[in-house]
Amino acid sequence: MQIKLIDGGVVAPEGFFASGIATGIKPNDVNDFALICSDDTAAAAGVFSGANVRSNSIKVVMDHIANGYANAIVVNSGNANACNGQQGISDAKQICSLVAEQLSCEAEDVLFLSTGIMGKPLPMDKLVPSVENLVGNMSDSGNLDAIDAIMTCDTRRKEYAAEFKLQDETVRIGVMVKGSGIYYPLMGGITVIITTDVNISKALLQKSLETVVSKTFAKISVDGKLAGCEAAVALANGQADNSGIVSQDNAYDSFTNVLQYLCSNLCKDLVRDCESSKFVDVCVKNAASSEEALTLANAIASSSAFRDDLAEGICDVSSIVNALNGSGIAFTESMLDVYLGDVQILRAGSVADWDADAVNALLAKNEISLTVCVATGTFTDKIMASLY
Amino acid sequence: MQIKLIDGGVVAPEGFFASGIATGIKPNDVNDFALICSDDTAAAAGVFSGANVRSNSIKVVMDHIANGYANAIVVNSGNANACNGQQGISDAKQICSLVAEQLSCEAEDVLFLSTGIMGKPLPMDKLVPSVENLVGNMSDSGNLDAIDAIMTCDTRRKEYAAEFKLQDETVRIGVMVKGSGIYYPLMGGITVIITTDVNISKALLQKSLETVVSKTFAKISVDGKLAGCEAAVALANGQADNSGIVSQDNAYDSFTNVLQYLCSNLCKDLVRDCESSKFVDVCVKNAASSEEALTLANAIASSSAFRDDLAEGICDVSSIVNALNGSGIAFTESMLDVYLGDVQILRAGSVADWDADAVNALLAKNEISLTVCVATGTFTDKIMASLY
Repeated sequence: MQIKLIDGGVVAPEGFFASGIATGIKPNDVNDFALICSDDTAAAAGVFSGANVRSNSIKVVMDHIANGYANAIVVNSGNANACNGQQGISDAKQICSLVAEQLSCEAEDVLFLSTGIMGKPLPMDKLVPSVENLVGNMSDSGNLDAIDAIMTCDTRRKEYAAEFKLQDETVRIGVMVKGSGIYYPLMGGITVIITTDVNISKALLQKSLETVVSKTFAKISVDGKLAGCEAAVALANGQADNSGIVSQDNAYDSFTNVLQYLCSNLCKDLVRDCESSKFVDVCVKNAASSEEALTLANAIASSSAFRDDLAEGICDVSSIVNALNGSGIAFTESMLDVYLGDVQILRAGSVADWDADAVNALLAKNEISLTVCVATGTFTDKIMASLY
Repeated sequence: MQIKLIDGGVVAPEGFFASGIATGIKPNDVNDFALICSDDTAAAAGVFSGANVRSNSIKVVMDHIANGYANAIVVNSGNANACNGQQGISDAKQICSLVAEQLSCEAEDVLFLSTGIMGKPLPMDKLVPSVENLVGNMSDSGNLDAIDAIMTCDTRRKEYAAEFKLQDETVRIGVMVKGSGIYYPLMGGITVIITTDVNISKALLQKSLETVVSKTFAKISVDGKLAGCEAAVALANGQADNSGIVSQDNAYDSFTNVLQYLCSNLCKDLVRDCESSKFVDVCVKNAASSEEALTLANAIASSSAFRDDLAEGICDVSSIVNALNGSGIAFTESMLDVYLGDVQILRAGSVADWDADAVNALLAKNEISLTVCVATGTFTDKIMASLY
């Protein structure tokens, strides 16, 4: 399949518009209020973190997205609308109503996300008077204004769009993401906004989104923590006029593959934006379950000793073994094999007689891979981790 | 009960001797080989990490300590005798045999621990010729030489000894510990050596040691990781001539309380030695199980955002809530209460209207406490964490 990367991000698909403005939540006239809108009602899908304590805005989104349709996504940054009591719920609903009024749609078709600090009331005095301007400003070139408005600690804009053939039509997917420099798992983490003009059922859009998020944004480790995807929402308005994805056929696979390709690229951008030019893929193979593979991979990826070693160009079995020991997952020492790239580091639990030049060449690269085989089963998982 | 802190560390109890010498494993003539010895066979107890990949020396210790008696503890630093294959086992056994020959005891009554880097053969060329000198040097004032020989990243010696009355006799407990600046959980972690002249059964010595380690050394978080106690071994030679602790009576409780008091002090010394003058006790109450309480406490203690905030004198609900969200433990937002010291920070999941002056006064202290109540059960656990 041919995938052509194109400009425009979330407004690259047909029938999407965006805007971003400054309401004063953030200082220095920085954008903090974004709108991404389809000119028709679109199939809508969402993946949200399993956080115990959620943004009140996300609680309302989960309610509004339940029927599988929406028209618009609205985002404010600088305030997470969390830990601020019942007022946070009614504030979120009011923003949805005001935006819906301007767009002539239902309040339930507006998905409002908030990202930023917790424990403060949503600054309604700044947001409410700005809704009319936010909607009035939207255009088919507003993607960069919108990105600027959703960024928190990010130092650069992160978006992709792709065009490809599907069911004999030219179709497009656009994605924008924020969430670099994240110290916080789950909340205040990654926010992903996806638009597409593909005609796809709401159920399959949801399934595709869940699959892709679980393989991409859910597997990034930054500063020794799984970053966590707080919210990923997708709108599919069907304006490309492909015949329609209604089963898990080749067309579904194509759509999912393109989405995964874009999201994988964005993951690398997220990790690269974390004050880090190097990253490591930690892959655990032959584990007893996916969960165990993920736990073991995360134990290594979250080890500051391991990441410090790699950042300094050192391969030390101590940091790898200690991280595995600290994982809480049981395995047998004599079954443990570890590879840096394709060079074996540990064989059956003992140090292998590795080629130092080959290892040094691997360590000098910006993308390093470590593979651990624990021989407790058949499951594999991996994590992409930033190095300082 | 009166507890009198005394000098001498592990040689303070009657009938114990120690030595420490430099064999050349470490550069610059730094001590790296230690002996702690009882002049009679002693009841012996040990607690070892659940690490999957162990030091080969510890594997032999676990075998030698199985009968509950030992005469001597030998430690080398600079090499963990791990990930080096079957040779590591036979090397450890040979060291035990050579020491036993000098002490005129059985090889099985020597407990040999190794700490340092992994994946290298034990430097037998340095250790073997040094055994005679190690044993010949032992004295009733060798505790500091021995401490120097077990230190790895530690910047200062850490030992305590106490004298107290038990069953109408004056008895003593001595403890030395190494393991500061630990980035590595479980392996290369904390090593604890305990001596006592108390007359106590091997089974109750074991029980007391397990209880104390689980409440102290197992609950230290350094650099965002549970440090982990790699090995804690205790010798009780009975020379104080108390009538004997043979049941879980008041005498057992007294012994355990004194041991816990000494180990708690050593935990603070370990945390203070980690380039940190401040630490925080994170206590989780009303959890569904001890494991959940520990997981939640560790999620906060291992959050760099939380620790950075405290180190900078900031109380931010975001870092606390995000750490709890990232724990993987389910609780209900509206049941969450959080206190800094005695000041309520979160009430029923929403920010409490706290007194900023009171909070700032608490944050200025070197010992800070955070209490989290999740209302899912009745279990409590806590972790002591270093701040940078």
